[in-house]
Amino acid sequence: MATGTTDAPGGTGAPGAATRIDARALHARVTPAGELGSIAGFRWGACAAGLKAGGKADLGLLVCDAPATAAAVATTNRVKAAPLVLMLERLAEDAPQAVLVNSGNANAATGAAGRRAAKRTTKAVASALGIPARSVVPASTGVIGVPLPEAPIVQAAPELVASLSPEGAGAFAEAIVTTDLGTKAAASTVGRGKRRYRMVGVAKGAGMIHPNLATTLAFVVTDAPVRKRFLRRALREASDATFNRITVDGDTSTNDVILALASGAGGGERLSGDDAGSKRFVRALREVLEALALQVVADGEGAQHVARVRVEQAPSPEAALAVARTVGTSNLVKTALHGCDPNWGRILAAAGRAGVPFDPEKAEVRIGDHVLYRRGEALMTPEVEAAASAVMQAPLYDLVVRLGAGRAKEYVWTCDLGHEYVRINADYRS
Amino acid sequence: MATGTTDAPGGTGAPGAATRIDARALHARVTPAGELGSIAGFRWGACAAGLKAGGKADLGLLVCDAPATAAAVATTNRVKAAPLVLMLERLAEDAPQAVLVNSGNANAATGAAGRRAAKRTTKAVASALGIPARSVVPASTGVIGVPLPEAPIVQAAPELVASLSPEGAGAFAEAIVTTDLGTKAAASTVGRGKRRYRMVGVAKGAGMIHPNLATTLAFVVTDAPVRKRFLRRALREASDATFNRITVDGDTSTNDVILALASGAGGGERLSGDDAGSKRFVRALREVLEALALQVVADGEGAQHVARVRVEQAPSPEAALAVARTVGTSNLVKTALHGCDPNWGRILAAAGRAGVPFDPEKAEVRIGDHVLYRRGEALMTPEVEAAASAVMQAPLYDLVVRLGAGRAKEYVWTCDLGHEYVRINADYRS
Repeated sequence: MATGTTDAPGGTGAPGAATRIDARALHARVTPAGELGSIAGFRWGACAAGLKAGGKADLGLLVCDAPATAAAVATTNRVKAAPLVLMLERLAEDAPQAVLVNSGNANAATGAAGRRAAKRTTKAVASALGIPARSVVPASTGVIGVPLPEAPIVQAAPELVASLSPEGAGAFAEAIVTTDLGTKAAASTVGRGKRRYRMVGVAKGAGMIHPNLATTLAFVVTDAPVRKRFLRRALREASDATFNRITVDGDTSTNDVILALASGAGGGERLSGDDAGSKRFVRALREVLEALALQVVADGEGAQHVARVRVEQAPSPEAALAVARTVGTSNLVKTALHGCDPNWGRILAAAGRAGVPFDPEKAEVRIGDHVLYRRGEALMTPEVEAAASAVMQAPLYDLVVRLGAGRAKEYVWTCDLGHEYVRINADYRS
Repeated sequence: MATGTTDAPGGTGAPGAATRIDARALHARVTPAGELGSIAGFRWGACAAGLKAGGKADLGLLVCDAPATAAAVATTNRVKAAPLVLMLERLAEDAPQAVLVNSGNANAATGAAGRRAAKRTTKAVASALGIPARSVVPASTGVIGVPLPEAPIVQAAPELVASLSPEGAGAFAEAIVTTDLGTKAAASTVGRGKRRYRMVGVAKGAGMIHPNLATTLAFVVTDAPVRKRFLRRALREASDATFNRITVDGDTSTNDVILALASGAGGGERLSGDDAGSKRFVRALREVLEALALQVVADGEGAQHVARVRVEQAPSPEAALAVARTVGTSNLVKTALHGCDPNWGRILAAAGRAGVPFDPEKAEVRIGDHVLYRRGEALMTPEVEAAASAVMQAPLYDLVVRLGAGRAKEYVWTCDLGHEYVRINADYRS
């Protein structure tokens, strides 16, 4: 199966209409899904069960040779999909050994039938693998409110298991995407004495959520041995600094989850958080998630740019984050980013409504290194405007707001809002 | 001067590109600005000072024969424009007798020079009127961060005063618009024994904020005699139920203000809030503001529909409002409204992320009278979908979310998000 495609499996006609940000410009850890290679203790599989149109792969299976150390962070949306609820229940009770992912159907808002479907499909895969059903955790993404067709998934279970391979991460990455313009993958390593652990992540999700309520799913696997408590803490910290920092249209899904699995096949004592190897592990996890999150935000329909909204000189980190999120979700700011317009007035006005006290006459707005506004004064000469607009042509740049109200700082990543977003989200019925 | 025009004075090329909602379909109190007539104790004026292109009127003056009873509610944005700050200072000290409004320049984020300009321009008008400068309150709307040209306003003051007429409300309404597709006006009456007071309101503001950060300004005048304390309370209540219930792109301006002035020229004892006349006064004020607010939300670029998002069965009014605002500002919901798509999944998912606890399996989603989702089950047959989509063709309709979590309810009005929004807010530089 081809990897790194720019098709939009299960999509709505998006591909080809817009140029796409080159993911490799976003982060050093971005790795094409087809080049992820193998990672000790894990096998990946994929096949087509007819949930997506055109015979595209829509089932992905990730299996560990033995029960894995696991941690997950999930959506805070009150409306949680059946597979997500089942995954969290099973993770709370047991060490999982396999993850079954289907795309093309979110199995969300499907009531009791949805819960039954999640149980029956994982049971079928567990039987084919010869492991207990409770060792298989499910995840789904796709259309909401439509019953999940159980039979084709149950029937495909043997084929799915037969497709397992240590080199299958690329095929798995393909199988889990929905309206994404491409697969999302990243890899890193963790050095520890003479050992060298690998860490690999794949994700799906487009920065701007699609007609059928797209989901962000991310799976990170490592051959490092890790204590469960430490893995949980590390995942929470790393996702807070990455996936919780991307803001696109403010909508969160019913199915979002980030799942980390550690096989321990790389050998050695379990990392527990106290030694230098643990620090490197956390750093690698954060880098992998950061690279995945940036690929998600860059995959907004029609997105041409990712901006890191940095808020500095805030009274507290919470205040800084509130301002960054308000600026990053402002449609007025996001359309200005699309037009490469260094419109500091929109940025300042968005900051002003975040509920954070600051004096605009002590504030400052920058694009890259170009100061557009400082202490009550617009500094936007034609030269500055042209220079700032040139910065905004880049795939990734910084937008900085200094509040002059303290020492705290925070950031979010956002993308621009253009015609493609409206076209795909409003016009898809016509 | 023509009134009720569909030109966009000072605009960016918006007019003509999109069909526009007929304001009279929105509310019974909507009145064409040219038909507002006179109201005892007030005169209105307008002229062009060159702040807008094409010689269009950009100064409006509203004068009361004697100092008026006044109340105002203003933006909560931390970034407040100089004229707004000066207006609030002067209202706190004195009864105002005149309101000077300029369009084409917001005089916001303009530092000390902006404050000087607000003082000098109101002083020039006060001199021409022969009243103290402190009796004139300013309001500005237009581009942010550009120094307000004082001299042309000062020079135009005599012409502006000479234009005053009891019949001038239509011309005033024209002078204060910026990128609006049309003027906004409403009128009502308040009966009290044999007396009959008039109430007239004019507003400017487009539901979706425009390139240069458009503002919502609203002025309501009445010949009723009113105690200041009662007028303040009535305005707060009425604006809370109207202008604070419109949500478009979540951006609030630096200049937003609603100002109510009562001349008392209609005669009689001052309304103080205790008698039946006071109740009718509050109702009329709410109706006028409601009619103005609906015109503002309907004037979003390219808006074809206004939806009232009603949230019912919530644990508290605050919770109901939080859910309504989250649904009403969701880009996914708003693009679905644009496509006349009864996409209950997006609505339910937006409700789920509002931070309000509820069980989706007890919830319900309706468009008009059509139930799309109830208690974990999608009810969207092709017939229901077609019927709900037909409802969504209307200029104004209800979108209802029942949470099954209590008895409180609240609502907001929102509009759809289409290509015009992106075109005007992103493409205006090219």
